[in-house]
Order: sequence, then C-alpha cells, then structure tokens
Amino acid sequence: MKAVELSFKEKQATLKVNEKMAMPVREKDQLRIKVAAAAVNRTDLVAKQTGNLPKGNTILGVEVSGTVVESDSEQFPCGSRVMGLVNGGGYAEYAVMNVGNAMPLSDQLTFEEGAAIPEVFLTAYQTLFWLGELMPTQSVLIHAGASGVGTAAIQLARKLTNAKIFVTASSANKLQLCESLGADTLINYKEEDFSHRIMKETAGQGVDLILDFIGADYWARNLDSIADDGRLILIGILGGSIVENVNLMTVMQKRITIKGTLLTPRSDAYKAKLTKEFIEKTSALFASGELKPIIDSVFTLNEVEKAHKYMADNKNKGKIILKTTES
Amino acid sequence: MKAVELSFKEKQATLKVNEKMAMPVREKDQLRIKVAAAAVNRTDLVAKQTGNLPKGNTILGVEVSGTVVESDSEQFPCGSRVMGLVNGGGYAEYAVMNVGNAMPLSDQLTFEEGAAIPEVFLTAYQTLFWLGELMPTQSVLIHAGASGVGTAAIQLARKLTNAKIFVTASSANKLQLCESLGADTLINYKEEDFSHRIMKETAGQGVDLILDFIGADYWARNLDSIADDGRLILIGILGGSIVENVNLMTVMQKRITIKGTLLTPRSDAYKAKLTKEFIEKTSALFASGELKPIIDSVFTLNEVEKAHKYMADNKNKGKIILKTTES
Repeated sequence: MKAVELSFKEKQATLKVNEKMAMPVREKDQLRIKVAAAAVNRTDLVAKQTGNLPKGNTILGVEVSGTVVESDSEQFPCGSRVMGLVNGGGYAEYAVMNVGNAMPLSDQLTFEEGAAIPEVFLTAYQTLFWLGELMPTQSVLIHAGASGVGTAAIQLARKLTNAKIFVTASSANKLQLCESLGADTLINYKEEDFSHRIMKETAGQGVDLILDFIGADYWARNLDSIADDGRLILIGILGGSIVENVNLMTVMQKRITIKGTLLTPRSDAYKAKLTKEFIEKTSALFASGELKPIIDSVFTLNEVEKAHKYMADNKNKGKIILKTTES
Repeated sequence: MKAVELSFKEKQATLKVNEKMAMPVREKDQLRIKVAAAAVNRTDLVAKQTGNLPKGNTILGVEVSGTVVESDSEQFPCGSRVMGLVNGGGYAEYAVMNVGNAMPLSDQLTFEEGAAIPEVFLTAYQTLFWLGELMPTQSVLIHAGASGVGTAAIQLARKLTNAKIFVTASSANKLQLCESLGADTLINYKEEDFSHRIMKETAGQGVDLILDFIGADYWARNLDSIADDGRLILIGILGGSIVENVNLMTVMQKRITIKGTLLTPRSDAYKAKLTKEFIEKTSALFASGELKPIIDSVFTLNEVEKAHKYMADNKNKGKIILKTTES
C-alpha cells in the first residue's frame, strides 16, 4: 500500500511516499480502514525528530477518517464512515483502529473534517472536563486559542457550559476566529500582558482553569492569573520546558493543581473510555453544525514535509490535513 | 477568661497567658466549649511570625477538645465531649466551634488524645484520599513519617487501604515508630537517597502518591520517585519554597499531578464536609484503638513559648499538646 515512510540518514529524518509499504495487520477488536484523510499533530513532529514512534509503529499519524473495509464489529460493519485515534500508522492508504477508538462520522461532515476532529476535540474535552474539572459557571483561559486544541476547547466550553472564556493569540485575525467560536475575552499576547488583563477582567480573582501549551515562558504569569483552587493543565511546552524559579508557597496558598498530560501515550482503555463519553456528549452537536472542526489547510501525502514545516512555523489556524488521494 | 495573648513589640511576637481575655461570642450553629486541651500546629508558628491570624481571631490555635457548655445542636448538647477544628481561638479556656466541625470524642480517648486528632488526621485523610486519590493497592510515599500528619497518614493508609507505604524520617527511632504504625519500607533520608531506594523497591516504577512537607529540597527527587499518572501533594515547605529548576517535560511525560494545599484557610463548608466523611470512616477505628493519636508531649498554657520552640526545632514525634488546666 501507499504510505509515508520515515527514514533516517545521519540522524536527519526524511518523510517520503513509498507505494510498497506493508499493509497493517488487523487484530481482534480492530477495524481496517481505507484512509481518506489523516491529520498532522505536534506529536508527529516530535516523533519524527526523536524517532520514538507510538507503540513501535513505523508510520506517523495518530488520527484518521475513512471507510471500514474489514471488521468484526457490529457497530462498525464494512462500509461505515468513521473517524478516530490510531496508534500510529495514519499517514497511509490503510490503517487499523481499535473499535473502542472509532467514532461514527456523520454524513454532514466530509472526510477532511472527520480527520480534523479526534485528537484536538478529545484533548480539549479531556483537559477541560476530566483533568480541568471545569464547572458550568467558572472561567477558563485557553492559550493559543486559534490552534487546533484551542479552537476545539473554545467551542466545547461554549456549547457544554456557561463558563467565561478568555483566550490568547498572536494576531487580530486569530482572535477574530476565537470570537466567532464563542470566546468572551480576546487577548493579543503580543500587545498586552495577559495576566494583567485577566486580573483586571476578573476583579483580581483570576481564572479557575488554564489550558496551556506554552510552558516555561508562561509559568509565572499563569500562576499570577489563576484563582484559588485553580487548575493549570500543561498540554504543551512550545515556550520551553525549564522553569527557573517556581514558588511553591504560591502553589500552596492558592491551592493550585498542576497537571501534565499527553494523550498519545495513554492506554487504549483510557482512550476508549474518553472516546465513548465524547461521542455521547457531542455527536448531535457535530451533526447539527453547532460544533465544527476548524481546518486550516489540506495537503496531499506527497506534500507531507511541507505540511510539517507549516506546523513547525506556527502558521496554522486550526488543523492541517493530509488527504491520501491526489485528486 | 484565661487565654494566650499574642502581642507584638517592635515586630517581635510574644505569647503570654492573660487571665482577663474576652469570652468568645457563640453564634448560631456553633458550640461554646470549655477547652480541656489544644494542639500546637505549624500554622500557629506561621501566624505568630506574620501576625496573620485565621479569620481575624486574635488568639492562636486551630484545634481543641473539651466539653460543650452552650449549644443549640441536638447532636452535641451541653455536656458532650467533643474534638474538632476551630477558626483560631484554641489556646484558651473557652472556644467556639462550628457544629459542622465538631466530632464526638469517644470515652476510650482522653482529652489530650482528642486534641491530637483533628488537624493531622483530617489533613492526612484529605491529602491521601480527596486530593491524592489513593487507590486500594497503589503505593504512597509519606515524607516526615514521624511527624503529626505523617503518623496519621501511615495509620489511615494502613487501616483503610492495602497500599504499599514508604516513609522517610531522620532517625532509626523515628522510623521504628513509623513501622509500628504500619509503614512497609523505612528510609532514613540522612543515610540514603530516598529516590534511589524508591526506584529500587518499585522496580523502576515509582510511587503513585507522595505526601510532601519539604518542598524545594525534595522537588527533583520527588519527581524522580513518582510513577506515571502519580500525584504529588504539597502540604508544607520546610525545605524551602523556591525550586530553581523545574522540568515541565517530566511533568507532562509522566502525566504528574501536583497539588498545593493548606487546610486552615479553607471554607467552613469544606471543613464540615471533610469532618463528616472522616467521622464515618474512622470513628469505630478510634474507639477500638486501631487508629490512635500519637502524642509527643504535653505542655501547660504557661509553657506555650517552650512548646512553640520545641516544634520549630523539629524535635517532636507526633503531636504537641497544650492543656488548659495546670494540674
């Protein structure tokens, strides 16, 4: 089958389409899927750099949409349109997916849209509600509001709660997207200190929850911006991983909870449980168009290096999609 | 009434018994208690240093035992023997206690023992189960195992779960106490690196939960010692509050949860809920002697400065009690 092959030459990784890759083996409780579209994620960029691919798979890509072509599942027989997480192997013509990770893809959505949903919406759902314990009338600060997880988190917080939603982004254009999705307070972090703005807008209380992709650069300002009993969920470290000065007294006095998380390495059972709850809460909202995947751009498999560079340069608003057909 | 008066002279705090302090005012849903014994806590030492007393009370002391002398509660009529948290005012002949914080004091226990229970056992219960989410067959590392909270946490983990219990302490004598209370693995932190020992004993897995009173000095070794999905609960910062190098990548990769906590500043509603659950889970175990408060020493009110110095010097194993009568 056709797939993107990852190879290393003098420690330099290259991605190239190979028409003769081995077909993945479907096991019990898995679906074989004819992939229509896969999405690019930061975890793919890291895996490419480090060579550590999830679960030993040699093909990148942790989410796909497509049509089931081999199945022992009553819920997803052959011909079903599905989307979901895969343990690697997404950048390919065929992939196998655990039945527990499969979600029905509504006829109202295209395959490109389907591939844009699982990773960011599941991460947003998990961090807002499972880890972040966002209550209906609390407040949440979503950094990188125009990113894939950011755009998903704004929508989920808007549709599933009455929370007050603060976002940061780097341009008026990105902030406009955040506003259209339901953000209440728009902060251009290049033009103002987000923690000053948060404290002003919340009358000195701070926010109950922060979803952060930045890490070290934002650490001190995040702790300044957080309310008593607040939660800081670390999903990424685009702004560095080493914090040079952490004041544990603040953590204790404000009774702050800090949780680090990565979705890809979690167990299949965890992902299946998350997927199940997510479908229950959101499938009607996707079908009605109240929740919508945000696609930035669509590349072909042959353009995969270009797609990775585009993400590495932080140029995208929403998801970057790879489609497996050239048309 | 007689109470310990806190006064400041050129920013130097002094504690002295004053026989003519004003009687505290009992409000609705409170008990007035003739105090038999109060306990000394680190929060008292901090309040003395900073002058910031809980809820504006001018008398130190956040837990007492004694006899109810004024009440509108059916559960705790006059004459009831009680113990519980108070919002300051404990170092005194009389104190008021919210009914929600009162716990019946079993006839099998003395008043000194009753005063030794609320703060450390409630903190241990809250940090092990509410914040630490200790599961029945997980593992827990309890630092300062011979301290007040340490001795309570070892017993609660032993009697309420099948968890594997690791403790650290500074001497063979203290570790012997920990073992007698149910600790499985004893680590003298002066003689060996606790993180090396933990990783050896857990075959490189680490522990699921750490209760830490030390803070900065232990930070890096705590992160080394913690398992994937582990929880680090920060209850104290005896080893400093400023960590100079925090690696957020570790926090994300191990999916670590860090929670700072202080019990004293929490709301009355929170304390009442915690107290209620604690009574349900433990009162039979206290009555039967399976759980027991650990008392280090008993001082009179007149000896309060000596009692504070004794705690500041970390000399105690278990609780330091102040009794209000001279006999």
